[in-house]
Parts: sequence; structure tokens; C-alpha cells
Amino acid sequence: MGRTSDARVKILSAAQSLIGLRGYSALGVAEICKAAGVPKGSFYYFFESKEALALAVIDEHWTGQQRTWERILSADTDSGADADPLDRLRRLFEETEAGQLAGQEGCGSVSGCLFGNLTLEMSNQTESVRARLQEIFEAQVEMVDAVIAEALARQEVTVTDTREAARSVVAQLEGQVLFAKLYNNTRHLGSLWTNCLALLGGRATGEATVREATVGEVTVGG
Amino acid sequence: MGRTSDARVKILSAAQSLIGLRGYSALGVAEICKAAGVPKGSFYYFFESKEALALAVIDEHWTGQQRTWERILSADTDSGADADPLDRLRRLFEETEAGQLAGQEGCGSVSGCLFGNLTLEMSNQTESVRARLQEIFEAQVEMVDAVIAEALARQEVTVTDTREAARSVVAQLEGQVLFAKLYNNTRHLGSLWTNCLALLGGRATGEATVREATVGEVTVGG
Repeated sequence: MGRTSDARVKILSAAQSLIGLRGYSALGVAEICKAAGVPKGSFYYFFESKEALALAVIDEHWTGQQRTWERILSADTDSGADADPLDRLRRLFEETEAGQLAGQEGCGSVSGCLFGNLTLEMSNQTESVRARLQEIFEAQVEMVDAVIAEALARQEVTVTDTREAARSVVAQLEGQVLFAKLYNNTRHLGSLWTNCLALLGGRATGEATVREATVGEVTVGG
Repeated sequence: MGRTSDARVKILSAAQSLIGLRGYSALGVAEICKAAGVPKGSFYYFFESKEALALAVIDEHWTGQQRTWERILSADTDSGADADPLDRLRRLFEETEAGQLAGQEGCGSVSGCLFGNLTLEMSNQTESVRARLQEIFEAQVEMVDAVIAEALARQEVTVTDTREAARSVVAQLEGQVLFAKLYNNTRHLGSLWTNCLALLGGRATGEATVREATVGEVTVGG
């Protein structure tokens, strides 16, 4: 049983890498099993179908990312540092950029956001995947919404609808990650923070300063 | 020769629809020819490979879209109306929303942006496609950049780097179109205009008003 569980993990891990590099449709079960180093027969022991594997890859990736986002964005941080809500948002972008850069250093290519990639590739074909991705993006928007609401209570932003503002921030993130993938270059992600402040009518560093900085500088690392 | 040219157009048209619905990798040449109503043998008379077809679909789509963007964004409009640069940008978002809605009414699904879809699906696999998509996005950013520069000269926006600002506007567009596809709902595109103004530090309707409206309202049709 130890060995079979290990095979499931290997299949998931290989599938996640391959989907990140080449998308879902381009992959076959045989190729995934070969990359995982497990016999093809094992696949259907663990996964009913390739679609079931895609859902498992999505869930696995979200489990890790959700933990990261909660650690960064939660007000109840163990470290006690970065209690300021806008500082937490800024860290989310910095860690996103660092994560994409680390991925590029690992495999040579910026792989982008797994959820964004699969949204554009699969959501019109596979309703189960669309539904799961909707839940994940809603959860992301909700987490960002909560931080914006905190910032609003502190009068650090001027939005009137925190939910829509959060959606726009996540949309900007997805759009810039798309460019990072297209150019295989993470430097575009450096503008996320100033863009976020602009979208929120933020005044973390003083209204005038923020306005000047808005989309005006691309500094790697935020 | 009339018939063969017709076959090429049919293949391109069928391929564009199918790629919009299901992506590139999921499609086979046989399926494309069947949808086009042409014998499979015709395919390789017109296209060296499936990759060559993808490039032709991209070029065909861009030829049309470039003409539309130029018509909307150019200062030398025949109609003479909407000479104000920010009004032209607003019209770009309105027509994008209308186009996605018309597509949804036609086939039941919001198909999103062909270039964004193929960027996330193909750019790490096929360098020729990545290069072509880079050129297209650069051209889009350049067109938006020119309009922002005009608005800046009229002191209607406050950005310091019009190129980066243009890239952020196109990134926001791609991110919101991703959500429109995910939810099969174009209403998210209604926030593009207020978000664009926020990103540009725009004051088309007065600084205070714009700040209040920033990402605060989603009005279909901009």
C-alpha cells in the first residue's frame, strides 16, 4: 500500500509539471505515467479518467496555494509582522513574482498560473473543471476582499465595492502573469503593486506619491 | 482554383471556431476538415502542418481585430466623433464587451480572447506561435500607448510611463476576459472602463468622481 500511494503522488506530481509546461489536452495518460515512472495500469487504479486527474491536480495545487495565500494575507499572522493590510497585499505580489521566477529557474519557462491556464484551455469543454476553477477564483477574490475591507476601514483605500475591487486586483494579477508567460520574463510582475494601489485608490505612501508611481515604474521584487 | 481557395477559407473559419471553443491541442486535422466540409487531403495542400494552421488562424483573426482597434483608437476617425482620447479607450472596452456577448449569443459560450487563450496554451510549446503572439500584444500595447500619450498631453491622465500603463490596461483587459470566460458571463467586462481610469490616474469626469467610481460599479456596456 505504501508503494501504491507513492505511485499516486508520483502521477500527480508529473501531471502537474507536464500540465504547467504543455497544457492539459496535449498530454496523454501514457506520457504522464512514463514521466512519473509508474506502469500505465496504475493510472486507472487511482484515477477514473484524465479529467479526474486534472481535478486532482487542481485540488492539490490549490491546497498548497491556499495555505500560502492565507499565511500572507491573514491578519492573525504568527510572526505578528506586516499587520498593515496593504503590506500584506504587497507581499502577495512579491511572493507571486518570486514563485514564477523560481519556476522559471527550475524548468526554463515561466509556467504562469495553473488556474488561469486551465480556465482558458478547459472551462468551455469540461464543466466539472469550470466549476472547480470558479470556486478557487471566488476563494482568492474573497481573501483579497477581506484585506481590502480592512484597508478601507483604516481609510487607506477609497473603493466603494470591495468585492469588485478584489476581482479587479486578481484580474490584473492574471493578466500580468499571462504576459510573464508570453515573454518568459517575470519583470512585468513588478508593476502589480503600483497597479493594485491605483485600482484601490490607495494612499499607503501618500496620495501624491502613489499617483506619481502609478504604473510608472517596473521594479522587480515589487 | 475558385473551389480550392474556398476550401482554405472554410478550413480557417472552422479552425478558428473550434480553437475558440476547445483550444488548439484538443483538435485533430480530421475533425477540422470534417467541420469545414472539405476532404482531409485538402488540408495539407493549404497548410504544411497543424502549427502552420494555428499561425494562419492567428494572423486572420489579428487582421480583423487590428482593423477594429485602429478604427476605434485612431485620432483620424472618419466620423470625427469621439476625438477625445479617453472616449476612444472607453469605446474599445465597450466594443470588446459587445463582441464577447455576440460570440456567446452565437455559440452559447464566451470564448474569450483567442490570443490570450493561445498564449496560455501554446507559448511554452511552440516558439513560432509565442513570437507571433508577442508581436500582436506589442502592437495592441502600442496602440493603447499612443492614446494614453495623447491623453497625457491633454493632462487627462497622470502616468509617468505610458508604455507600462498601456501594458497594464491590456493586462486588465485579458484578466477580465478570463473571468468572463470562466463564468460564461460578460458582465465582469463592465468594470474595464473604471479600472482603466484608475490605472491611468484619469480625471476624465473629475478627479473625485473617478476616485469614487473606481472599481465600485459594474455597469454592462461601460
